[in-house]
Amino acid sequence: MNNRFEAIDEPSCRLFQDSLELVGRRWTGAIMLAALRGARRFGEFRQAVSGISDRLLAQRLKELESEGLMTRTVIPSTPVQILYDPTPEGQKLMAALQPLLEWSHQRATVPA
Amino acid sequence: MNNRFEAIDEPSCRLFQDSLELVGRRWTGAIMLAALRGARRFGEFRQAVSGISDRLLAQRLKELESEGLMTRTVIPSTPVQILYDPTPEGQKLMAALQPLLEWSHQRATVPA
Repeated sequence: MNNRFEAIDEPSCRLFQDSLELVGRRWTGAIMLAALRGARRFGEFRQAVSGISDRLLAQRLKELESEGLMTRTVIPSTPVQILYDPTPEGQKLMAALQPLLEWSHQRATVPA
Repeated sequence: MNNRFEAIDEPSCRLFQDSLELVGRRWTGAIMLAALRGARRFGEFRQAVSGISDRLLAQRLKELESEGLMTRTVIPSTPVQILYDPTPEGQKLMAALQPLLEWSHQRATVPA
């Protein structure tokens, strides 16, 4: 076995892999996309992300919040309103995913 | 419920979600990165992607091949050599993931 290939468990590559797994989690991309399109309330996300269950949507929003990609704001109105917004970090992530969005479109239209 | 939010199950958004799930699959990013760094043989990928099992590496390479992102070439030497190379499509994908790679680095160095 030669040693030409540096192992890909260096911190920077772990970070890349972690980021890929984060955004690759089922529905996460669609939820972020819905947020960018203006969804802020739970019901708006549910409407935008067809097919997601309430339980999974709540779980994904909590994950995005704990990753620092979305904020959750409770408005003490009657009834209480809860609003979800992308953080600057979440907006940067969506911008960073733009080329992948374009790749997926181009891939679908140009036969391999 | 208002109708301000178009549902995100349109074909283009499904494609995006599919692409995210493809690249978010455990080890897939690291394997593509190893290929870009010059890994071509099974043993080279195993060396570059620390911690992956032979079984999972074989499965991921097969997936990447069936997605049209890697080619598998059999060289009829003794012993037979099998080489894996990114397709032009796979190279485009890695280029499209570059901003995400940068985002993951920047995120690790700048406190949220």
